[in-house]
Amino acid sequence: MRVAGVHRRSIVAANHGRSIEIIDQRALPHALVSATLATTEDVARAIREMWVRGAPLIGAVAAYGVCFALRDDPSDAALDRACLDLVATRPTAVNLRWALEEIRRAVVAAPLDRRLDFGWRRAAAICEEDVAINEAIGRNGLPLLRVLFARKPMGQRLNILTHCNAGWLATVDWGTALAPIYMAHDAGIPVHVWVDETRPRNQGALTAWELGQHGVPHTVVVDNAGGHLMQHGMVDVCIVGTDRVTAVGDVCNKIGTYLKALAALDNGIPFYVALPYPTIDWAAEDGLTSIPIEERDPAEVHCVEGLRTRAPHGAAGARVRERVRIHPTTSSASNYAFDVTPARLVTALITERGVVAASREGLASLYPDREVAKSGAASFMRS
Amino acid sequence: MRVAGVHRRSIVAANHGRSIEIIDQRALPHALVSATLATTEDVARAIREMWVRGAPLIGAVAAYGVCFALRDDPSDAALDRACLDLVATRPTAVNLRWALEEIRRAVVAAPLDRRLDFGWRRAAAICEEDVAINEAIGRNGLPLLRVLFARKPMGQRLNILTHCNAGWLATVDWGTALAPIYMAHDAGIPVHVWVDETRPRNQGALTAWELGQHGVPHTVVVDNAGGHLMQHGMVDVCIVGTDRVTAVGDVCNKIGTYLKALAALDNGIPFYVALPYPTIDWAAEDGLTSIPIEERDPAEVHCVEGLRTRAPHGAAGARVRERVRIHPTTSSASNYAFDVTPARLVTALITERGVVAASREGLASLYPDREVAKSGAASFMRS
Repeated sequence: MRVAGVHRRSIVAANHGRSIEIIDQRALPHALVSATLATTEDVARAIREMWVRGAPLIGAVAAYGVCFALRDDPSDAALDRACLDLVATRPTAVNLRWALEEIRRAVVAAPLDRRLDFGWRRAAAICEEDVAINEAIGRNGLPLLRVLFARKPMGQRLNILTHCNAGWLATVDWGTALAPIYMAHDAGIPVHVWVDETRPRNQGALTAWELGQHGVPHTVVVDNAGGHLMQHGMVDVCIVGTDRVTAVGDVCNKIGTYLKALAALDNGIPFYVALPYPTIDWAAEDGLTSIPIEERDPAEVHCVEGLRTRAPHGAAGARVRERVRIHPTTSSASNYAFDVTPARLVTALITERGVVAASREGLASLYPDREVAKSGAASFMRS
Repeated sequence: MRVAGVHRRSIVAANHGRSIEIIDQRALPHALVSATLATTEDVARAIREMWVRGAPLIGAVAAYGVCFALRDDPSDAALDRACLDLVATRPTAVNLRWALEEIRRAVVAAPLDRRLDFGWRRAAAICEEDVAINEAIGRNGLPLLRVLFARKPMGQRLNILTHCNAGWLATVDWGTALAPIYMAHDAGIPVHVWVDETRPRNQGALTAWELGQHGVPHTVVVDNAGGHLMQHGMVDVCIVGTDRVTAVGDVCNKIGTYLKALAALDNGIPFYVALPYPTIDWAAEDGLTSIPIEERDPAEVHCVEGLRTRAPHGAAGARVRERVRIHPTTSSASNYAFDVTPARLVTALITERGVVAASREGLASLYPDREVAKSGAASFMRS
């Protein structure tokens, strides 16, 4: 990822066992603010309050969160408590559970005085693997964009619609849905991205910021607009990320994804979902009934935060952040954070191993080694 | 309509030929502010800047706008100029063109010194007719809600989803989509309304305010949420208003309506559109190609206005309105205000004459007298 022309990652863990540095995404897109996390509780808060977000990133950050617990107390009890505290921070993205289980597996057979070291190395490896996976997703998705671009009339750009943020900021580097887009842009394909605003948390602002930092042409639209754009030939392809894919290819992603998938089908537009293997929940089948959908604070719906457009008295020109309430104070709101797009609406899944149908057969063909026992819960959740 | 328990209308024209009083909807839902309009330019600005909005209401207000021109200069030239100025304020709602044509027809054969009087009476009649039409829409829609409620398990409320604001505030009284809901509530049917926020202008806040004033239970949701609610059985029926219906039943309404109609079809949920006859554009056939879609200022997408949630320094507790920018200042935005829901996705149209299929045959059966010459333009636009 590139910020102001400089390469960086969304997690920096330079301080073995002590702390990690992350980007506090609450300040974006208006300011780039780093934060240091040094305890399990720091990490839990950062995930719960969305300083970090995005399925792969919260998995990687949580992995370090377990290590901080092992630093202070390497016992099995402390290990399990840290895993349980962290897995409870957000219910929907399965990468979180996966990463905690990975750390647990890496340390549980080790002597107590080596556990921090083993855990830290595994957390670092999860980060390195995430970068390599996302680069592979980009390489695998790029030919799909090439083919679509080749079909466009001469001189026209390739229009891609994305929902939420599945870029650098949602991973350690590259992103999932945005990786093929960055590669296409770097390869000279004239891409243009329609960025869904993604209410209520406005992660579209993150996507717009990321794309802007990389120089990728883009336009922000409200979440309501995608259908109209598709009806009028202004979208060539949709690519989104995901927080959990079931063994049959149902896709859980940010609320509103399902609506865009319906519109894509209605207009004959390919709808791709990009994901790393830790996003696959082999124990889940029907996405609508098996995936827990997080309900967040209604205040996220009622209120919006942004930069004041008028300078406040006595502070002319200051970039002041303000939170405003949109709805009547007497009205309630509901805030489901994710929805499920049935596999029948997904053109294909783009993974680090290749592009495959969103189906049991498709996933099994790519991951013959991965179809694990369908326990449905990580080992620390059974203990 | 009921505001703080008191009955009122959205236009008050007590002052023959001089002025009208409207609700300045820009201040809602946080404050109820009236504004006096006394010139054609006042009216044009109020429509363009959305002090008033909603297809039936802008038609009624524009009718008075022509009268103000006739007061100052009753000539044919002044009449045509006023109509042309007013019809240009917003391109999509056909009620605007209809109302201007009505006033023109009412005055054009009259002597110059009677034109203001004739016009004013016709404008008042348009308002009275709008109220009667909407009441009839409510009466015609109510049985649909009764049938759906009768199918619900004992003790469960009827869940209705609506998009944008098609209530009192969008008409002179009652509303279109909300009229059957108010009547159902008043008839003792336990209704609950899912109110789409309706970015970028957040007309859902208007709907929430209206429903709250009438005591109708409701919950605000982001525009992304409707699909998830429908997938999980939390929506029994959708009812929306419209800005233009073509002769074959295609429905143009607030951007995002099409996405909800797709989700309703995918989940077997009825999708009704409520409209008065002036919303029918008999000259238009295919909605996707024949209806001009307004593009508004991208600033409406980038910025949100609301009440500050923190009291500013030195004004503790003050209800201060503030406008904040959500997106990066380096990103552009696009702002299409409407989309078209093809007739195939519409369960039925609810009009003042009855409930009918969204089709040429359906509409022609209700309006055998109305299918006028398909000129496509009002007479003042041809002159």
